[in-house]
Amino acid sequence: MAGYTGTKDEYLARLRRVEGQVRGIARMVDEDTYCIDVLTQVAAVTKALEAVSLGLLEDHLTHCVVDAARQSPEAGQAKIREASDAIARLVRS
Amino acid sequence: MAGYTGTKDEYLARLRRVEGQVRGIARMVDEDTYCIDVLTQVAAVTKALEAVSLGLLEDHLTHCVVDAARQSPEAGQAKIREASDAIARLVRS
Amino acid sequence: MAGYTGTKDEYLARLRRVEGQVRGIARMVDEDTYCIDVLTQVAAVTKALEAVSLGLLEDHLTHCVVDAARQSPEAGQAKIREASDAIARLVRS
Amino acid sequence: MAGYTGTKDEYLARLRRVEGQVRGIARMVDEDTYCIDVLTQVAAVTKALEAVSLGLLEDHLTHCVVDAARQSPEAGQAKIREASDAIARLVRS
Repeated sequence: MAGYTGTKDEYLARLRRVEGQVRGIARMVDEDTYCIDVLTQVAAVTKALEAVSLGLLEDHLTHCVVDAARQSPEAGQAKIREASDAIARLVRS
Repeated sequence: MAGYTGTKDEYLARLRRVEGQVRGIARMVDEDTYCIDVLTQVAAVTKALEAVSLGLLEDHLTHCVVDAARQSPEAGQAKIREASDAIARLVRS
Repeated sequence: MAGYTGTKDEYLARLRRVEGQVRGIARMVDEDTYCIDVLTQVAAVTKALEAVSLGLLEDHLTHCVVDAARQSPEAGQAKIREASDAIARLVRS
Repeated sequence: MAGYTGTKDEYLARLRRVEGQVRGIARMVDEDTYCIDVLTQVAAVTKALEAVSLGLLEDHLTHCVVDAARQSPEAGQAKIREASDAIARLVRS
């Protein structure tokens, strides 16, 4: 089980939508759509993925990190270190 | 013709790769892969899309904006306004 | 006491450095320094502030969030909600 | 002369405000203000600096890049390359 297992179907639906959006962008590029309109669509996909990441992160903190902190301070600290690295990657991506 | 028309095939190949990556993330979620590993993959896709955006933007400046600026200062200014808004959306996404 | 109280002096030193950097950028602007060089300096300050935020966030998770989760699941959940909103603001800023 | 020279005073006023905000954050840290409130203030400063960067970039495109493109295609291309690198740094910061 992962932190997001309880709401897995929602994530799967969102990712399928993102996949469709990416395919739509490829179609736009193939039809020489105006650059700015393509860029607007890419930004929309990026925002959708960002929302997925923020959701996964909250689920992870709620389940995995809190569970680890309940086991032992060391286990909690290790999970927080790991989550902080993931947050840094998210902020920089 | 769009600013990226000359290198369209390269963008199409990149977008197809992104589409495959998104499908891969859905598979990871479906198999309850550890949250942090899913997050790492989402960050990789976001970076790939960011690279697509930066490439499209440079093509747009090189072709569409410079062409407009050659036609008239007003046309150039309008295109720069529009490009600046796209850059702002990119920075915030 | 806040989550960062134990390393407060380090944050204060970093913020003093950022303040100096901002003053340096104002000097560059006042002397009509080339735009791209000013932009490079602004990006450096943004990165420094981002590092401050990521540090504060890790301290907050380590102390405030874990302490709340130890008190009660509800208190933990409320702190995680609040931290997730802060992460979202950080990602979008 | 730089691309932003015409509106230099506005940038100087904004940077002075940012400097004051950074000093305010140091004061908050010194008084052990709650982590989340400090993070909110840091995000506000980051947003203010982002607005400065976007403004400088638009001025740069309007003046320096367009002037270079008028001189020669090569000069224009070199400036666009350089501006694109600055945009990439901005997106990643």
